[in-house]
Amino acid sequence: MSTLIKAYGTESPEIPLHELTINRRALQAHDIEMEILYCGICHSDLHQVHADFGPYPAPIVPGHEIVGRITAVGEHVKNFKIGDIAGIGCIVDSCDHCEYCNEGIEQFCEEGVTFSFNSEDKVSGGHTFGGFSKSYVCNERYVLKVPAFENLAAAAPLLCAGITVYSPLKHWGAGPGKKVGVLGIGGLGHLAIKIAKAMGSEVVVFTTSPGKVEDAKRLGADEAVLSSDAEAMAKYSRQLHFIIDTVSAKHDVNVYLNLLRHDGTVVLVGLPPEPLEINAFNVVMGRRSFAGSNIGGIAETQEMLEFCFEHNITADSEIINIQDVNIAFDRLEKGDVKYRFVIDMASL
Amino acid sequence: MSTLIKAYGTESPEIPLHELTINRRALQAHDIEMEILYCGICHSDLHQVHADFGPYPAPIVPGHEIVGRITAVGEHVKNFKIGDIAGIGCIVDSCDHCEYCNEGIEQFCEEGVTFSFNSEDKVSGGHTFGGFSKSYVCNERYVLKVPAFENLAAAAPLLCAGITVYSPLKHWGAGPGKKVGVLGIGGLGHLAIKIAKAMGSEVVVFTTSPGKVEDAKRLGADEAVLSSDAEAMAKYSRQLHFIIDTVSAKHDVNVYLNLLRHDGTVVLVGLPPEPLEINAFNVVMGRRSFAGSNIGGIAETQEMLEFCFEHNITADSEIINIQDVNIAFDRLEKGDVKYRFVIDMASL
Repeated sequence: MSTLIKAYGTESPEIPLHELTINRRALQAHDIEMEILYCGICHSDLHQVHADFGPYPAPIVPGHEIVGRITAVGEHVKNFKIGDIAGIGCIVDSCDHCEYCNEGIEQFCEEGVTFSFNSEDKVSGGHTFGGFSKSYVCNERYVLKVPAFENLAAAAPLLCAGITVYSPLKHWGAGPGKKVGVLGIGGLGHLAIKIAKAMGSEVVVFTTSPGKVEDAKRLGADEAVLSSDAEAMAKYSRQLHFIIDTVSAKHDVNVYLNLLRHDGTVVLVGLPPEPLEINAFNVVMGRRSFAGSNIGGIAETQEMLEFCFEHNITADSEIINIQDVNIAFDRLEKGDVKYRFVIDMASL
Repeated sequence: MSTLIKAYGTESPEIPLHELTINRRALQAHDIEMEILYCGICHSDLHQVHADFGPYPAPIVPGHEIVGRITAVGEHVKNFKIGDIAGIGCIVDSCDHCEYCNEGIEQFCEEGVTFSFNSEDKVSGGHTFGGFSKSYVCNERYVLKVPAFENLAAAAPLLCAGITVYSPLKHWGAGPGKKVGVLGIGGLGHLAIKIAKAMGSEVVVFTTSPGKVEDAKRLGADEAVLSSDAEAMAKYSRQLHFIIDTVSAKHDVNVYLNLLRHDGTVVLVGLPPEPLEINAFNVVMGRRSFAGSNIGGIAETQEMLEFCFEHNITADSEIINIQDVNIAFDRLEKGDVKYRFVIDMASL
């Protein structure tokens, strides 16, 4: 039997987020139920609430960087017990039998994954509701064990922002001897700097904000370059093994392709709404690539959490009450946050 | 002492190619001299003669798919003797000490390669003259041994078109179990089909020309799809491991990105003059890449020649006399050749 719980969401893009009541599905045999302690705010929450990726069934309850405490377990649950601290990220279900799911890259599931909000719930019908709510019910296969971070709130953004940069850093081989670029310093970029550095790479940050140059170094970057400074940029021509591009607005990728060594890659993890233009010469010369990467699989997310715990990495977070979420959305839209809002869900 | 020889070239884009006399540099200790037997015509010869990549020092003598017979060797030449059949492709010199040259990817030489024509000749001064001429003089390090192809004329295009598709097919792992797409059937595309097939891949060809669908199969393709047929295209969604994109005009790459499996790559080997637009979703979803590839190194070109000889692969060639080169250029511009013009240099 489903449960009525408090949440924060809205019925349409014009209406600010407000308190409402939703139905959380009944606990299934493989499900855990979690009391939500903290939920990060990601730019894609904003996009979805604004219907930037298309219309949605109402109400929408965003939130997919969820940390909480297990409050109930279904009869077949093996890996969690009541009281455990656990996490839920972007993916709460997938077919679990296609080659992609079998390879641990559930994000590319042939039948399409169920996202933690605004996705059809294939178990209960209806659509999923995200982490701006009191509790979550989810098959344990998609639930992460959260290590004992000192600042648990600041660990919540790892569930999306963290894995979104960890996965490509790992895939493209960040580590000692590798010169890795990070383009843009925001929720994703600031974690990319910390994680790439912890992996042993040399990290060069590119930013359009003079005010962020010093901050990049504080975050661990070896060098930080103002991308408008042509002379400084030229110094990096053909120097970088790959670049994590976290920019979500239209920008000139060609400039960054030219900073790559041969066989280097610019890896886009942002989602600019307009197409990006690429000059043929910039990929043909040097056998360079422009690639993308989308979150990561469940096992890799678990690995990332352990890596971050071991290296004492969390997001630079500003903790807010749920009642301030609309103000936070406005500030996030302007890039006015260093570098992630996290909601203390006790405020709900 | 340099030698005066006959060649075909022009002084400017407005003047058709015509016979002229050029200075071939004097034989150096590591040089071979070659009597040119055959020279292929590549689309980039046309681009350069038209000054599409910028103005050039006059006169320009194109031609970089050169097969000939060694007629003299410098005192330190080790690998060639008079009478050998040999080949010269795009690269005739490089620094030979940077990490790229040492890795055998001279095409990415840090100091820039010397191309077989329209490049500064760092040995003799002046600029290089291509294969539309009686003879060539070149350091043996950049000269290829040409196996005993039955149709030697048809082997000439392997020196550029062949290596341009062989190198990415090898780099991105063509072989048994791999489904490889080939986009465009021209000089490059028709060789990509033959080579990918010989490597053991399943080959799917995409063309805009209804008249080429059957020809793709004759060339060895397992399947050939008219790219305007949306229904046929949809069948290949997420099916291909990678696609060799040989199209040199502006085209929509997004359509082809969507035919890739996860971690798949569209590899551009053409040089469209206008930028290509890429939608973020099409690379982010599936961790796909848009990459480029540029000819190949000298050792890999040698390997390619041996592979093609072993698998009986040459270009489908139309042999012409040098006096017909302007007609051939016009026809090439219209795509009216199946699939490569090769000049019988005895006609000069």
